[in-house]
Amino acid sequence: MTSPVVSINGELRAADGLHVSGLDRGVLLADGLFETMRGRNGRIFRIDRHMTRLAAGLSAIGIPMPGTLRDWSLAALGAAAHQDARVRLTVTRGLGPPGLLPPNPVRPTVIIAVWPIGDIAGPGLAAVSLHVASGRRNERAMSAGLKTLSYTDGVLALIEAQRHGADDALFLDTDDHCSETTVANLFAVVDGGLITPPASCGALPGITRSVVFELAAALGIRCDERAFGIEDLLGASEAFVTNSTRGPVAVSRVGDRAIGTGTSGELTRRLADAYRSLVLRECP
Amino acid sequence: MTSPVVSINGELRAADGLHVSGLDRGVLLADGLFETMRGRNGRIFRIDRHMTRLAAGLSAIGIPMPGTLRDWSLAALGAAAHQDARVRLTVTRGLGPPGLLPPNPVRPTVIIAVWPIGDIAGPGLAAVSLHVASGRRNERAMSAGLKTLSYTDGVLALIEAQRHGADDALFLDTDDHCSETTVANLFAVVDGGLITPPASCGALPGITRSVVFELAAALGIRCDERAFGIEDLLGASEAFVTNSTRGPVAVSRVGDRAIGTGTSGELTRRLADAYRSLVLRECP
Repeated sequence: MTSPVVSINGELRAADGLHVSGLDRGVLLADGLFETMRGRNGRIFRIDRHMTRLAAGLSAIGIPMPGTLRDWSLAALGAAAHQDARVRLTVTRGLGPPGLLPPNPVRPTVIIAVWPIGDIAGPGLAAVSLHVASGRRNERAMSAGLKTLSYTDGVLALIEAQRHGADDALFLDTDDHCSETTVANLFAVVDGGLITPPASCGALPGITRSVVFELAAALGIRCDERAFGIEDLLGASEAFVTNSTRGPVAVSRVGDRAIGTGTSGELTRRLADAYRSLVLRECP
Repeated sequence: MTSPVVSINGELRAADGLHVSGLDRGVLLADGLFETMRGRNGRIFRIDRHMTRLAAGLSAIGIPMPGTLRDWSLAALGAAAHQDARVRLTVTRGLGPPGLLPPNPVRPTVIIAVWPIGDIAGPGLAAVSLHVASGRRNERAMSAGLKTLSYTDGVLALIEAQRHGADDALFLDTDDHCSETTVANLFAVVDGGLITPPASCGALPGITRSVVFELAAALGIRCDERAFGIEDLLGASEAFVTNSTRGPVAVSRVGDRAIGTGTSGELTRRLADAYRSLVLRECP
């Protein structure tokens, strides 16, 4: 597979090299945040929103935001030959004393990796099947709402999902509400309108999720953030998941139950088309 | 401060160097486990138990256990000039494709760091004060019971605790039971016996915790694993926390409420003394 472009603290490095200290708090403590962004033809879709979210998160956990992240991300994308790219921007709290206590001052470590992904104008993923994870998302965690490096649970849920023949895992929160999948926000179509779990159910405030809010408003589709359980999802006429690298993708089934017709429904198709057009317009 | 000894995949490296890829799943996804062990005079206290716990955890999450971890840990300790040492052993899932899906085969990354700590025969920490974390520990997480790299919540809880003038943060689980602190298991003395949260309250199966079970049995002190709430802790005649680098340490207060006399109680002192003697006997 094509090698990713790697940038460390703003400098391009060989992808197969050693880049960070084994004592970095990103490695030892998952002490940091990240963004996954869609790049195309040298532009990053909604980069300002990614930077705003990251700045808010870093401020909340006490890591100073390097003012150069936008430029570094675009420079790494520019160094990649890929037309469509996944741009992963990781900011850790850097080195510190042994234990959990943060260093003062903080000198963050910034890792940017750029991989090729499929053409946004291409056919894309038709649908994903979901397995309901056996473990719960903690909507009352210290880091709820933050896109932290603590992804062990996501990895374990995905491994479990694949064992069950599904493409991704859906997390319920500790109160039995649908939250999100390991890598995507969730939407369901109920009574002709969209519903999506609010932050209080442990859902991250996804950038693509917010773009769907925009698109739905423009298309005259009602969209509510509200808590709902698995029965509501199973009874939905359509469901889809969203993230920055794929846009809206239909959910074909949850466990052994088909959602709607088991293929992409009408609202999902309209939103996916509108999303694709928007990306092509903003990143021509 | 003294530089740590750093070993990467069994080879000693300069502590201030670059050791791992910025694409390692330990950095990007907290995809790995760790042990923190006490070294003294070239020996690691209860190393077999640490290796057994780590092997069980790695097996559970699908990372092959390098057969050399025991030797590598002892070699790193041997390379350090410290009489008493904190030995941190980290195993990640290594490199993989972009996204959450694990690579196959897995080539783990092993990071061992050895820092000096206080002499076990010295006075040690008199007591710690605890702040009750605003966020909850998730006892129903995919990774519950595993010592994963996902420590963001611990870091954030400790920062919050320090803002409240406390030494450490106590997590409650999502059902309002006491769980553990950011770095230690919790014990309370109620009706003359010990109680400690069970795994079902999100408590990790600490090695020092299990040593306290042994010592309590030898000293004729009753010890029960059972769920209890914050009111039980506040009403306890003594409380203490345990981890591998410090052994049992008294809890002086929780929030603004003193526990017992606010200093180390009799059972805590007896157990801390017995622990110290045991370490000195096994690691002379």
